[in-house]
Amino acid sequence: MEFSARQIAELIDGVIVGNPDATINNVSKIEEGKPGTISFLSNPKYTKFIYETNASIVLVNKSFEPEKEISATLIKVDDAYVAVAKLMQMYAESMPKKSGIEQPSFISESASLGEFPYVGAFAYIGDNVSIGDNVSIYPNVYIGDNVKIGDNTIIYAGVKIYQGCKIGSNCVLHAGSVVGSDGFGFAPGEDGEYTKIPQLGNVVLEDNVEIGANTTIDRATMGSTIIHKGVKLDNLVQIAHNVEVGDNTVIAAITGIAGSSKVGKNCMFGGHAGIAGHLNVADGVKLGAFTGVSKNVTQKDLFMRGIPAQDARLYGRSFVNFKQLPDLAAQLKELKEEIKKLKGE
Amino acid sequence: MEFSARQIAELIDGVIVGNPDATINNVSKIEEGKPGTISFLSNPKYTKFIYETNASIVLVNKSFEPEKEISATLIKVDDAYVAVAKLMQMYAESMPKKSGIEQPSFISESASLGEFPYVGAFAYIGDNVSIGDNVSIYPNVYIGDNVKIGDNTIIYAGVKIYQGCKIGSNCVLHAGSVVGSDGFGFAPGEDGEYTKIPQLGNVVLEDNVEIGANTTIDRATMGSTIIHKGVKLDNLVQIAHNVEVGDNTVIAAITGIAGSSKVGKNCMFGGHAGIAGHLNVADGVKLGAFTGVSKNVTQKDLFMRGIPAQDARLYGRSFVNFKQLPDLAAQLKELKEEIKKLKGE
Amino acid sequence: MEFSARQIAELIDGVIVGNPDATINNVSKIEEGKPGTISFLSNPKYTKFIYETNASIVLVNKSFEPEKEISATLIKVDDAYVAVAKLMQMYAESMPKKSGIEQPSFISESASLGEFPYVGAFAYIGDNVSIGDNVSIYPNVYIGDNVKIGDNTIIYAGVKIYQGCKIGSNCVLHAGSVVGSDGFGFAPGEDGEYTKIPQLGNVVLEDNVEIGANTTIDRATMGSTIIHKGVKLDNLVQIAHNVEVGDNTVIAAITGIAGSSKVGKNCMFGGHAGIAGHLNVADGVKLGAFTGVSKNVTQKDLFMRGIPAQDARLYGRSFVNFKQLPDLAAQLKELKEEIKKLKGE
Repeated sequence: MEFSARQIAELIDGVIVGNPDATINNVSKIEEGKPGTISFLSNPKYTKFIYETNASIVLVNKSFEPEKEISATLIKVDDAYVAVAKLMQMYAESMPKKSGIEQPSFISESASLGEFPYVGAFAYIGDNVSIGDNVSIYPNVYIGDNVKIGDNTIIYAGVKIYQGCKIGSNCVLHAGSVVGSDGFGFAPGEDGEYTKIPQLGNVVLEDNVEIGANTTIDRATMGSTIIHKGVKLDNLVQIAHNVEVGDNTVIAAITGIAGSSKVGKNCMFGGHAGIAGHLNVADGVKLGAFTGVSKNVTQKDLFMRGIPAQDARLYGRSFVNFKQLPDLAAQLKELKEEIKKLKGE
Repeated sequence: MEFSARQIAELIDGVIVGNPDATINNVSKIEEGKPGTISFLSNPKYTKFIYETNASIVLVNKSFEPEKEISATLIKVDDAYVAVAKLMQMYAESMPKKSGIEQPSFISESASLGEFPYVGAFAYIGDNVSIGDNVSIYPNVYIGDNVKIGDNTIIYAGVKIYQGCKIGSNCVLHAGSVVGSDGFGFAPGEDGEYTKIPQLGNVVLEDNVEIGANTTIDRATMGSTIIHKGVKLDNLVQIAHNVEVGDNTVIAAITGIAGSSKVGKNCMFGGHAGIAGHLNVADGVKLGAFTGVSKNVTQKDLFMRGIPAQDARLYGRSFVNFKQLPDLAAQLKELKEEIKKLKGE
Repeated sequence: MEFSARQIAELIDGVIVGNPDATINNVSKIEEGKPGTISFLSNPKYTKFIYETNASIVLVNKSFEPEKEISATLIKVDDAYVAVAKLMQMYAESMPKKSGIEQPSFISESASLGEFPYVGAFAYIGDNVSIGDNVSIYPNVYIGDNVKIGDNTIIYAGVKIYQGCKIGSNCVLHAGSVVGSDGFGFAPGEDGEYTKIPQLGNVVLEDNVEIGANTTIDRATMGSTIIHKGVKLDNLVQIAHNVEVGDNTVIAAITGIAGSSKVGKNCMFGGHAGIAGHLNVADGVKLGAFTGVSKNVTQKDLFMRGIPAQDARLYGRSFVNFKQLPDLAAQLKELKEEIKKLKGE
């Protein structure tokens, strides 16, 4: 779809400087701006690019005063960053949305679909599955028996949801993610062999949860593994059985949470982080990348680093000394010599 | 399916205290017990919940004597934990099992299926594939040409098995796992470009192996990558080409083993662990989470931690001092001053 | 297919010692050589195996002189390793290649396929997709709308490519990999909730790129996430939005690169490595396994280790002292005692 500067200015309450009939059909970064795209200038560091950009329209703050000629049409707004986020949202919503039921797909007779569904080809919807309105199920998705899915949820290609799991409304599950695989539970025998402990629980994703590509969330042994509302998991994250992740916690890629741990609300975990099993982590805790939590964390909003994890400030101090260790060791050696001399040896 | 207290007591040789006609159709944790479920009390820490639980039936040890009224029907057994594990197994086996061949699926004319198969819709079974009895192949599974699969194996949705691989009996492959992708082998050229080394081997999974969701196992360059019997791999584990993992070794999530390494029997690896290429790791070795093995490990049953890995006790001692480093550095500085004074400087 | 020693000797310009009519139909390692296979001896460490191998043919260097009888037919060449790599390539090319369009598959009427395609059953090819010549698309692959794919590219089973991404020529995408999932971008609100920032860009894979199994590459917020030509990514690698990876860089498994970072050419990263967001990493940089880069790396060809990463030599020296820390701490304590004595306390 194409939009003119005039249309855009109206949408975001902006003032046009230049050609009101300039049109765009895509968004670009100002340093890479191409004709037919809209860009924005918010960070003053990028100001130099506005004089060279080929973007057709650039959103700028009201305070911006050009020092040279600019070929792009400008739209002046209160806050260019907020305006562009709003436009990106509008743009995303304007994109054609898949709808209808493609063939061949497999929909059990006992499954119920809501209004305005999209079911891609080769999607599989099992017995007694219940799906809300405006749900998109992309091709090659597998939805096991007795799964429930809320309204407006998007399930991208190749997602696998095991039987009995519950997915909230307004969720996004990215391609290849797996929800409800068996927890890693085995009882050791005397001969070194393991007996599988059946995993009879399920996974519950509450509303507004986003799950990254190829992320895995295991079902509970009994009860539910619960991802509370607003949680965002990046790609390749592992959530083990009976874990609970609190509201609006955000977890970066390649992070794992071991069995039965409970993570609080509003936490932020960097990539490659890990939490051992059966732990409690307080609300608002932040973990740096490559941080390994091995004990309960009771202090809210604590920022932690290190393997095993400790207060990031303490870790940072120790790490400074770690880098100086060869020097400290040399100093120690020197002191030993000095003392020998003082002792007259 | 529903079971009465009377039926359950018979199955596990228990004694009923309460209503023998109480019925359940699911299992729950005692602290979350709902009507219509059976729960158990084994750990005394949870005793308080038995007086409030809404579970209809609770398994307890024979020695348990209630101090207050309990609404649930009790079944007294020798060991409540063992009994519940046995019941979970029975329950899991009682659940309806998919069977038959759903349409559309793709089964090569030259493939052979055993007795009592389940083949889900959109499953692909290539040329000359040979599949044993009682095998479940869920929807959207891909099985390449010349693959062999033993009896009673379960292959969950979206698993991909490349051509020529061999899967044993009684294996479980969880959704999205990949078996037989090319090993990461490239010959560097003088211009910085790489030439692919064809990966002509395969992967062999022996009997009783369980593979987690989205775990990847690469085929050998020549010969076989071998996962020996009883091995359990968690989710998001990476096994590189020509690796061998010994009997009953258990590997937690987000762990990787690099090319050509041989891991012994009965090892246990924590999450986020790693083993460099071309190494041997002895039987029974245990790796803590975030442990990186960079040398051969010849000592059986050694417990290791750290990056690079060392004996966990030594690592622990060093780590205690690491946390004290700022203090040690300060002490060192002080001593230098003292010595200056002693020297009359 | 079968080859005789005579045919092979011709192909690689070798001299036969033994039976020119010996035939093989597979390749094996010399220590595991089976009848009907060809093996090679390059590393002198393996010389002992040539006297016991059951391989029918063994490639050896011209300089090799047997000390005992050998049952295998030998083919003497200038460099046995180079010759075997060449033969493996020929062998791989001789293997039957899938072709044609299997049914059922889903190919949009507006999609265009090149010459000699393979499209497996249950593959999905969206609107306006453009695919080059000799492209293999295995079963259960999902290719979103407006994707472009170059010549000779192989897309293994269950790969998911989101709409609008561009894949070069001669690429290999292994099973379960995901290209073009949304970048992990959310704007925090005052109430702790996050608003999704639409991810409007795409992913560009240039020519000769290989992507490992279950690896994930996120689309850019705006513009493109770019994997430049010749890059090789192992399994379970995470590439975040707006990342750029330079020509011929090689990245081992379970490594992640966070948003907007730019990695140079000819880099080599070990497994479990990580690079924080918005960083630049110079050409030729090498990262050991479990290395976490947290600052720009401006020095070309630097070898780094540690979390956070530093020059590997410095890290190594510090780590030696780390292992000695309990001893250093004890020495320090001793010195304090000595000084007390010297001071007459």
